[in-house]
Amino acid sequence: MTNNKSNKITAAIIIIGNEILSGRTQDVNLQHISLWLNKLGVRVEEVRIISDIENRIVNCVNELRKKFNYVFTTGGIGPTHDDITAKSISKAFKLNYESHEEAFSILEKYYKTGEFNEGRQRMAIMPSKAKLIYNPTSGAPGFIVDNVFCLPGVPSILQAMLGGLDNKISGGKIILNKTINLNTVESKIAKPLREVQEKNKDVEIGSYPFFRSGKIGVSIVLRSEDQKKIDKCNNEIFKFVLKKNIIQIN
Amino acid sequence: MTNNKSNKITAAIIIIGNEILSGRTQDVNLQHISLWLNKLGVRVEEVRIISDIENRIVNCVNELRKKFNYVFTTGGIGPTHDDITAKSISKAFKLNYESHEEAFSILEKYYKTGEFNEGRQRMAIMPSKAKLIYNPTSGAPGFIVDNVFCLPGVPSILQAMLGGLDNKISGGKIILNKTINLNTVESKIAKPLREVQEKNKDVEIGSYPFFRSGKIGVSIVLRSEDQKKIDKCNNEIFKFVLKKNIIQIN
Repeated sequence: MTNNKSNKITAAIIIIGNEILSGRTQDVNLQHISLWLNKLGVRVEEVRIISDIENRIVNCVNELRKKFNYVFTTGGIGPTHDDITAKSISKAFKLNYESHEEAFSILEKYYKTGEFNEGRQRMAIMPSKAKLIYNPTSGAPGFIVDNVFCLPGVPSILQAMLGGLDNKISGGKIILNKTINLNTVESKIAKPLREVQEKNKDVEIGSYPFFRSGKIGVSIVLRSEDQKKIDKCNNEIFKFVLKKNIIQIN
Repeated sequence: MTNNKSNKITAAIIIIGNEILSGRTQDVNLQHISLWLNKLGVRVEEVRIISDIENRIVNCVNELRKKFNYVFTTGGIGPTHDDITAKSISKAFKLNYESHEEAFSILEKYYKTGEFNEGRQRMAIMPSKAKLIYNPTSGAPGFIVDNVFCLPGVPSILQAMLGGLDNKISGGKIILNKTINLNTVESKIAKPLREVQEKNKDVEIGSYPFFRSGKIGVSIVLRSEDQKKIDKCNNEIFKFVLKKNIIQIN
């Protein structure tokens, strides 16, 4: 993994799971992974949610691992027939799908004598040469192959596992951000905000209308690696905000 | 749009928005659109979340509109500089990006005299020949080009607009489902569940561990267009559930 500090370090997330696509389950892992990566100086640039079908996983992983510095997959790690992530990743990298010595040993110690059954042994089968992602909550590890990190879908387990991964990620500069909440509507500020964006092309300026507790408003979000550039945009925005008598809200 | 009732009718969703990728905002539109489409007999087979960058939107729309019967986009409809969905869709379809007569007229009536400013007029600019998706809550319409439906990102507005789209979707057979919640762990049922899946290849059987209110359990979800096939799987699952003395929970 090259890590040129002057370049953006990027990631993609692949959420594997029919239960998310069907609407049965609300995904919460994207937000958690993305906020964690932000702090490490890595930007999530694309997310794909795909079904538990081997060739779709293989194609998606092979496309995205070439485009982005890191790829994270969630879901499909476990003992049941619909857990096909490890097998699919083996295929994507043309690696053997075989019992992993260290993973087997971890699981063997985790379960009581006689309880390390066939289903549980299956959780040690993964791509050959995979590095393990240790699981402090339930034994069964995730794994890393090259720049692809495979995590489970259960949010509490995924979150516990991310904690141990900080030193496996070589991030770039941290992406800083500032949010300005205004008691206005987008169409009242669209023109001057566009002018600020045109003068400050390397600050990402987002405008998001909101409706909460009966109040309407707009959140303007400034994102950049450079605090000075954010401050400059912020000042330019407050010039037109004051001129238009728009009230800032929390 | 062909609609062979014996074939699956499929959809993809493209969520356009840096605020979702950065983790700032939790998406809730996917779940809403997917559950609405399920009821119309349409399966969401892929979701992509991409940033507000024109060529990414163009490429993504052009790839997915050929692969799936329907494509829904959310976000990037509005008056500010980061709202580039309409322009990107025009480019994807090689259509002019121009003021839409009916949309202009709707917005002109919606705003008070003198308040239909430049920013608001911009919301009437869209791909030529687009069909409108009417917006009962805030005037500004979405639009349809061929099999691509463009909706706003604000959940309450999106939900109000979907209500008027039922008759624009030609779905297939409704996908039925049954959930069985068991007080067990996946590894205890993996083997017999796999056997049920192998005997019932055209029922989608998902297994999802859960942890709630201190209880652990597994939800088994059966999905098929055919209630009899679901019932057959359900019976086969209850055979091993009873044999293993596993308790069913709500």
